[in-house]
Amino acid sequence: MSAETSAVPCKVVPASRIAKKYTEEIKAQTAKMDHKLTLVGLLANGDPAAKMYASWTGKTANSLGFDYKLIEVPQKDLLEEEIYKANDSADVDGIIVYFPVFGDRQDQYLQQCVSIDKDVEGLNFKYVSNMYHNIRFLDQEHTKKSILPCTPLAVVKVLEYLGVYNTLLDYGNRLYGKTVTIVNRSEIVGRPLAALLANDGATVYSADINDIQIYERGDGLRLRQHHVTDCTKTLEQCAKGSDIIITGVPSKQYKFPTEYIKRGAVCINFSSEKNFDDEAVRKVASMYVPMIGKVTIAMLLRNLLRLRENRSE
Amino acid sequence: MSAETSAVPCKVVPASRIAKKYTEEIKAQTAKMDHKLTLVGLLANGDPAAKMYASWTGKTANSLGFDYKLIEVPQKDLLEEEIYKANDSADVDGIIVYFPVFGDRQDQYLQQCVSIDKDVEGLNFKYVSNMYHNIRFLDQEHTKKSILPCTPLAVVKVLEYLGVYNTLLDYGNRLYGKTVTIVNRSEIVGRPLAALLANDGATVYSADINDIQIYERGDGLRLRQHHVTDCTKTLEQCAKGSDIIITGVPSKQYKFPTEYIKRGAVCINFSSEKNFDDEAVRKVASMYVPMIGKVTIAMLLRNLLRLRENRSE
Repeated sequence: MSAETSAVPCKVVPASRIAKKYTEEIKAQTAKMDHKLTLVGLLANGDPAAKMYASWTGKTANSLGFDYKLIEVPQKDLLEEEIYKANDSADVDGIIVYFPVFGDRQDQYLQQCVSIDKDVEGLNFKYVSNMYHNIRFLDQEHTKKSILPCTPLAVVKVLEYLGVYNTLLDYGNRLYGKTVTIVNRSEIVGRPLAALLANDGATVYSADINDIQIYERGDGLRLRQHHVTDCTKTLEQCAKGSDIIITGVPSKQYKFPTEYIKRGAVCINFSSEKNFDDEAVRKVASMYVPMIGKVTIAMLLRNLLRLRENRSE
Repeated sequence: MSAETSAVPCKVVPASRIAKKYTEEIKAQTAKMDHKLTLVGLLANGDPAAKMYASWTGKTANSLGFDYKLIEVPQKDLLEEEIYKANDSADVDGIIVYFPVFGDRQDQYLQQCVSIDKDVEGLNFKYVSNMYHNIRFLDQEHTKKSILPCTPLAVVKVLEYLGVYNTLLDYGNRLYGKTVTIVNRSEIVGRPLAALLANDGATVYSADINDIQIYERGDGLRLRQHHVTDCTKTLEQCAKGSDIIITGVPSKQYKFPTEYIKRGAVCINFSSEKNFDDEAVRKVASMYVPMIGKVTIAMLLRNLLRLRENRSE
């Protein structure tokens, strides 16, 4: 027998396989409901990629037992009004706005216009603030679960599927001992994701184009929630010491340098562009998830069900 | 709410909890057998600790449906003859010799005197050589499983229980991406353990009093079995980069320096002496297994059942 193996040992895991458990749970729940919940999508940017994503959300929502209604808003300036209409309509259970619209701070403002009771994306300030402070419920009685931002939540579910969360550890500490590098620090994914993983016990290097920050709960998980400090290491040093590399750079050109990846690391990309070199990453990673969109949509619909539960309490 | 948690998040896992699954499997198997298998223990060293261990093996064996017979050999020189007697006796199914006897190379010789068909400890050269070469069966037809040395095997089972083995990866690659430091390179535990873990995909720093070696299967697990190279790093550097620290130093005085342990690492001690400072290690490790003796005995009895299966093919 030869001493060399020919097959590359990396597991490439498609998002569909990870999403399956959740789509089945969702289907079982909607099957028991006496009327279908309605999700409204608001599209105001005329971007073909956003339109694709919108139609994809629609198909998935319909196939899982929801009604999906896409409203195309002809002018950006009319979007705010449409959001308020959907907020007030008794026929609408959940709202998703396809960003970017203005592509600046106004988008953040628009996101906050969505009623907290219909915010399936989990981007309402209250939800995001709860997440940063590791508060899991909306009420003192712990009957209403706080909604989590759906893309960061999808990454968490991907990590759970991959066995990175250790279920033997206490809930909330299950990433203790894991080091993660995240390339993206956007307000809707990168920063909340870093906070979520650090709150679960990980040491997270959060990198954006300007600098790198460390999110962590201190020695021995001393802190209840993460704190953030500046990192003096380079991306290469951070990545080489990381068990998990997560990328979300919205650029066709960007590729994470394969030579920065530690042998046997777990690589996950949440950008709609492939941030890893598909061929090269397989030679060094132990597990690789090239795209997570299907898990994100499952989380969005799961949030819709959860919002419904919160209302019925 | 205070930002600091008071409870230390480390999980201390007793060996009894890990052993339970195996002892129950063993009990279920012995319950189905028409006669009890007999395990013979040969004690020739007069060491009170060995006598304790022997009586403990006996109690466990009896409680799990075996017959256990302890033979105390009054003179070291008579041990070899007793081993051959047990080899030849149709009433004996498994043999365990309590080492050290001479405390030198003669012990290795004596271990090889035990019949391969009755070697519950898995220390026969054939078994050990198969293990180093990652060969899992004794025959070409793959009907007879090769026996694994029981203490290294117990450590593997501990790591499986702790969720360190990732079951999503292919069998044989499940430690890919994990770095392990082992302090002990004895022929009966440390070296086979390093080989086993490296064969399963880990990068292993194997430290003894003289030097440190690296056991690994190369970039991308290129090799079918591990190779060994010298390590130029210090124990501190190795340990600080390790997800798992395993100690087996047979000394009351020895304590692994807590400051070498990476935050959130997994710590396991297989020595009968506690090699970690119980209090301190809990402040930095995510999981800690202070002793593994009960798992080792379970593996020994499991090997006895496996030897029986191999004979009946």
